[in-house]
Amino acid sequence: MPIYTPPLKDMQFVLHEVLKVQDSATPGYDELDTGFTSAILEEAGKIARDVLAPLNELGDREGCRLENGVVRTPKGFKEAFDTLRNGGWTGLACDPEYGGQGMPYVLSAAVAEMQTGANMALNIYPDLTHGAYSAIHTHGSDALKQKFLPKMVSCEWTGTMNLTEPHCGTDLGLLRTKAEPQADGSYKISGQKIFISAGEHDMADNIIHLVLAKIPGGPEGVKGISLFIVPKFLVREDGALGARNGVSCGNLEEKMGIHGNATCVMNFDDAEGYLVGEAHKGLRAMFTMMNQARVGVGQQGLSQAYAAYINAAEYARDRLQGRAVTGVQNPDGPADPLIVHPDIRRALMDQKAFIEAGRAFLIWGASMIDAHTRSGDEAANGLVSLLTPVMKGFLTDKGFESTVQAQQIFGGHGYIEEQGMSQFVRDARITMIYEGANGVQALDLVGRKLASDGGKHAMAFFDLVKGFIKENEADDGLNADFLIPLKAASKDLQAASMYFMQTGMKDPNAALAGSTDFLHLFGHVCLGLMWAQMAKTATESLAAGASDARFYENKLVTGRYYMQRLLPETGLRLARITSGAAPVMALAAEDF
Amino acid sequence: MPIYTPPLKDMQFVLHEVLKVQDSATPGYDELDTGFTSAILEEAGKIARDVLAPLNELGDREGCRLENGVVRTPKGFKEAFDTLRNGGWTGLACDPEYGGQGMPYVLSAAVAEMQTGANMALNIYPDLTHGAYSAIHTHGSDALKQKFLPKMVSCEWTGTMNLTEPHCGTDLGLLRTKAEPQADGSYKISGQKIFISAGEHDMADNIIHLVLAKIPGGPEGVKGISLFIVPKFLVREDGALGARNGVSCGNLEEKMGIHGNATCVMNFDDAEGYLVGEAHKGLRAMFTMMNQARVGVGQQGLSQAYAAYINAAEYARDRLQGRAVTGVQNPDGPADPLIVHPDIRRALMDQKAFIEAGRAFLIWGASMIDAHTRSGDEAANGLVSLLTPVMKGFLTDKGFESTVQAQQIFGGHGYIEEQGMSQFVRDARITMIYEGANGVQALDLVGRKLASDGGKHAMAFFDLVKGFIKENEADDGLNADFLIPLKAASKDLQAASMYFMQTGMKDPNAALAGSTDFLHLFGHVCLGLMWAQMAKTATESLAAGASDARFYENKLVTGRYYMQRLLPETGLRLARITSGAAPVMALAAEDF
Repeated sequence: MPIYTPPLKDMQFVLHEVLKVQDSATPGYDELDTGFTSAILEEAGKIARDVLAPLNELGDREGCRLENGVVRTPKGFKEAFDTLRNGGWTGLACDPEYGGQGMPYVLSAAVAEMQTGANMALNIYPDLTHGAYSAIHTHGSDALKQKFLPKMVSCEWTGTMNLTEPHCGTDLGLLRTKAEPQADGSYKISGQKIFISAGEHDMADNIIHLVLAKIPGGPEGVKGISLFIVPKFLVREDGALGARNGVSCGNLEEKMGIHGNATCVMNFDDAEGYLVGEAHKGLRAMFTMMNQARVGVGQQGLSQAYAAYINAAEYARDRLQGRAVTGVQNPDGPADPLIVHPDIRRALMDQKAFIEAGRAFLIWGASMIDAHTRSGDEAANGLVSLLTPVMKGFLTDKGFESTVQAQQIFGGHGYIEEQGMSQFVRDARITMIYEGANGVQALDLVGRKLASDGGKHAMAFFDLVKGFIKENEADDGLNADFLIPLKAASKDLQAASMYFMQTGMKDPNAALAGSTDFLHLFGHVCLGLMWAQMAKTATESLAAGASDARFYENKLVTGRYYMQRLLPETGLRLARITSGAAPVMALAAEDF
Repeated sequence: MPIYTPPLKDMQFVLHEVLKVQDSATPGYDELDTGFTSAILEEAGKIARDVLAPLNELGDREGCRLENGVVRTPKGFKEAFDTLRNGGWTGLACDPEYGGQGMPYVLSAAVAEMQTGANMALNIYPDLTHGAYSAIHTHGSDALKQKFLPKMVSCEWTGTMNLTEPHCGTDLGLLRTKAEPQADGSYKISGQKIFISAGEHDMADNIIHLVLAKIPGGPEGVKGISLFIVPKFLVREDGALGARNGVSCGNLEEKMGIHGNATCVMNFDDAEGYLVGEAHKGLRAMFTMMNQARVGVGQQGLSQAYAAYINAAEYARDRLQGRAVTGVQNPDGPADPLIVHPDIRRALMDQKAFIEAGRAFLIWGASMIDAHTRSGDEAANGLVSLLTPVMKGFLTDKGFESTVQAQQIFGGHGYIEEQGMSQFVRDARITMIYEGANGVQALDLVGRKLASDGGKHAMAFFDLVKGFIKENEADDGLNADFLIPLKAASKDLQAASMYFMQTGMKDPNAALAGSTDFLHLFGHVCLGLMWAQMAKTATESLAAGASDARFYENKLVTGRYYMQRLLPETGLRLARITSGAAPVMALAAEDF
């Protein structure tokens, strides 16, 4: 069975040494001293390792079952969920007014990496509840907030998001679910939704569905979509549960992975619902929490890469197979461990160099979300909005690839389900698809975010990179190993952006044909920047005679690997982008 | 349920227009006129589409079950296998002396792509039988051949390969299975083998296991390994089946994919076995058929990519979602088909451009195997041996990636098992692992094949590329679109080879750290060469006023896509390779 080792030291390094959250002006960050964060992360890490991880493979094997309309979750899931609920973990970053702990998102994001890394399927239940909480918290009336939020913060009630219908996923303008206004101000919701994660299950007293639907007579397309709360059980004035509402699970999907998560077909049949926010503004309400939700999915991808990686590293140290080409390393054994072989190390270094920078990228992103939500920093909001599709798309594409590399190290054993490596691959696969498929992320990046506010946020990113290089280029080692490659990669990114600006207006297909390449190019520059920043911190710590020199030296080694072997991909991505639309668009549809 | 459309026209194009097999001097190729090959391929395609493909998803869902030592294969598998047996398909390329059809491998390889593309799990049974047939045919005594081959050619009896043991896969020197010589010249085999495909099942009267084992007192390590035939049922002098032998299936593995294939733990307990070839030369005997087996696995990877691709293209044409950025394309519908979106086309073009060149590469490889086996062409043998790890490693890495891209086009529907796209991904995944994991292929390429015979075969490959460019560069269109990019890629490959030659002797880790990159660099040059050759043929056909101009124009479009957007990866691979061993080897094992 796979192990889970919480990456505590690495998280502390990013939080306190690289980002220096304790010195930030963001309200609430003054609490984040190393003693406090390490107490929280250690405790969360223990739960991840000892409670959540041991259930991961069992959840995959057992899956969820639909029996007479009731969904049975895998054995032990409810008890593990209770551990999260009882410890107050589900409300870590929630508003204290509704029973939350009020912690910064940056801390809860670090906690979430461990929880979802240890058991992604289980954590979808509280994750979605938090998403629904955020939508209601931002857009709901006081009455709705008082009625629903306290139980959602504690996860006594869980939440869902109902967007997709059989004939429409990305293109929500096509949706058909109807909401008929009632005399008492409520609505009757009817329609079918599919792919509803945690839509029905046996781990909570009530389930609060957020549902996108159309009020008859409203505008056509996406402008006529409204957002509703539809509880599984109606909630009485005194807060007690009332009658069962007209919502039920019609089927469970058999999926490639996240078997412990109940993915439901949900049928709404004159179900009582309550409008959240304004009528016809539902899509906006749903999307205001999108940054955080997409960062969360990026984190799922990264967390699976990390979980798979630590197991692959362990296997590579243990499994004896073949001899090192430069001479026997384990003379007392029948063979050397796999890790002596350069190609095995290459695969492990690919994973490690990606994961550590990806983690820093996500924590940085979370800190910008805090800067916006806690102190109204619009520049931070603009930048993190720009980077959100990169975090979601790049970290899940590469996260999946990384789990495949980890599985490969196990040879034939990696293909056997019992070993657990297949599950990391299968679970990670969904992260490239849901919360906006990665092609949609690329479209969002190139078609919307890049030029938003006159390209201001993209310029801010380039300035940030340039500023960091300028500030630090006097350090020869840092300059040669990190800043020069970063500068080259950043130039590729600027050249690609320039190409889009020049061709995008007259030939939008030319920009969109390169959108996925651009997303990856951008992702590499971000991780290159993370490595440059981490290398600077490591260099300074070494110069200051840090007691744990090896930790910092290893950071430099791993960072150099990224700069030398992974970052040069930016040139290839640029070449693809500037080949334009013609090669992509030339064939007739029927000739594929 | 996924469809399967046999790629008949594409195969005919490669066989008759690009490779011109009908004009080849290889014995037996004179039979291969277009009428004959199209009759065979059409019939094989029908079986693939109508008999094998409809069972694919069912085989995945139902899997194999072990009941009291008997393995039950999925419903319908035996009847479909009967169709293959009764039609003589299993012996297509086998020796007529033992009941085979004696066809060239190049034709049976084309047939195999369709059969394995339509149902990979089912085709493993005849594929492995053919592998075992080849080993016995090449190395067995006449008596063994007479006794076992006729029933293996007809697949009344199936075959297996027993190499892996729990503690050793790649490193066969560690194996422990013992073969004790008996007075009658037979051996008693005892030990445990794992991951034995088709090790036990209910579709054949007998199963002929080929088993690697050590004769006590023989040399240590791989030099003391011998190859044995161990039948499930002993075969009497008159050919009738006798007593059950001491071999049984101890367990079935639960795997990520190929569920219709029985992957068995095999226990040998004083089982009667017969030496194949010389004692202690078993590994050589097993590996002489390795070229063909590895080409076959490369073909599995490609075949899954193709099967996934045709379904993705169909879905992209059918599914209505969003509107084209350049203006509505389907004004009468609620939305435009997915295929109008540039990023969807980009993903489809990635797949198509890879698949068509990969198919040509494999058929070319098969023709070289024929040139060697049918007319003793040692140059062809040297070249195909060099290219075998590329065909296996590159085509399965990219084949898997291609299935993931196809699945991605389905969005959330791609993650649902019912849709069938997940199965292509899960089935294709094994091709990167078995028959020598792709890291081992890369090691074989860089550590052995590249420098074998003084680098003669690598030089022959470079000369082939150079010669083709020189012969054709007078054609300006071909030169600009195909030959110039091919020349650049080939230079990257030569630079990488040179780097290995210069550093490999003093720092073997520097060569091996770049081995996977080299395999991919080599693969791209091969597919670039295939596209250049196909483009030449297409250009000539268009100039000659071919009636099906659109087919040839599409070839040029698809080829240009490869040259512009995929082939430039060679530069990135070269950069990684020349970064050398240091970044890969610098960390201590315990610091991963």
